[in-house]
Amino acid sequence: MDFSIRAANVEDCKDIARMIRELAEYEKVSDHIKITQRDLEQDGFSKNPFFHGIVAEVSEQHRTKDGHTKIGYALYFFAYSSWTGRAVFMEDLYVMPEFRGNGIGKALMSKVAQLGLAAGCNQLNFTVLDWNKSSVDFYLSQGCFNVTTKMGYHCMRCEGKALEDLAQP
Amino acid sequence: MDFSIRAANVEDCKDIARMIRELAEYEKVSDHIKITQRDLEQDGFSKNPFFHGIVAEVSEQHRTKDGHTKIGYALYFFAYSSWTGRAVFMEDLYVMPEFRGNGIGKALMSKVAQLGLAAGCNQLNFTVLDWNKSSVDFYLSQGCFNVTTKMGYHCMRCEGKALEDLAQP
Repeated sequence: MDFSIRAANVEDCKDIARMIRELAEYEKVSDHIKITQRDLEQDGFSKNPFFHGIVAEVSEQHRTKDGHTKIGYALYFFAYSSWTGRAVFMEDLYVMPEFRGNGIGKALMSKVAQLGLAAGCNQLNFTVLDWNKSSVDFYLSQGCFNVTTKMGYHCMRCEGKALEDLAQP
Repeated sequence: MDFSIRAANVEDCKDIARMIRELAEYEKVSDHIKITQRDLEQDGFSKNPFFHGIVAEVSEQHRTKDGHTKIGYALYFFAYSSWTGRAVFMEDLYVMPEFRGNGIGKALMSKVAQLGLAAGCNQLNFTVLDWNKSSVDFYLSQGCFNVTTKMGYHCMRCEGKALEDLAQP
């Protein structure tokens, strides 16, 4: 199946917001989604954006029954390791279920890797849900390794009232 | 003990590089350190920096036997969650051993939280080594939670030849 991958622009935010919700349903975390199309427009497409995006598109002839031709996306941002320097963090990688198995996810991830290398990054980092075995296996097959099991790194978070309390001088 | 916390500038990179090495020795990962003072100068203090930093300083009267007055630092960068939007990622938090127990680590982390909230962030994220029980306990006492144990998120990485292979179209 022919598809193309290109940098996301502000007009893609409606479809990206739709696919974020689809991915959250797949990951069984829909109730955690606070993001809106408007947030994406503001946060990704103004001066000093918080993220960048790429989208995968198919031709009209392959559009979904709901009329969608934007059928996959990845979000990423630049990060830093105090051990090894510049890094790129892939926040999301998603392909609509009916389009999987065509190399689109691999192509999206490859593009993020290209963009990272072009910016001088030495690492591509991301997180995965440990129960999502098909994703874990896909990433391992691409030469990625699990930093949590290999080196003992755990992800920590502060949010809500705890974050506000922490910020008190 | 009096101390002050301020934004890092390019002249601090020598001390930050020193403390990165000290932290790596503490974490038993010195052989992983590739970063140099020059990398920090280029990556943190040019247009579109990959990270920001803050440093903790004490007065001359409290300087170390080696003459250091810059005795702690934190590095951070802005990140994004496709669930909840803007986030700040704390890459490192370090206070020289002889200055611990004075609230300097808490003050550095608090400053990162303040800077994150001021930029509209909803989350402060970071990683911790699971064997580093004193750090884990400190973070939990600040209202942070472990995303890896609570939600099953594992950190994944691609680097070196695997990253170059992945980037091949």
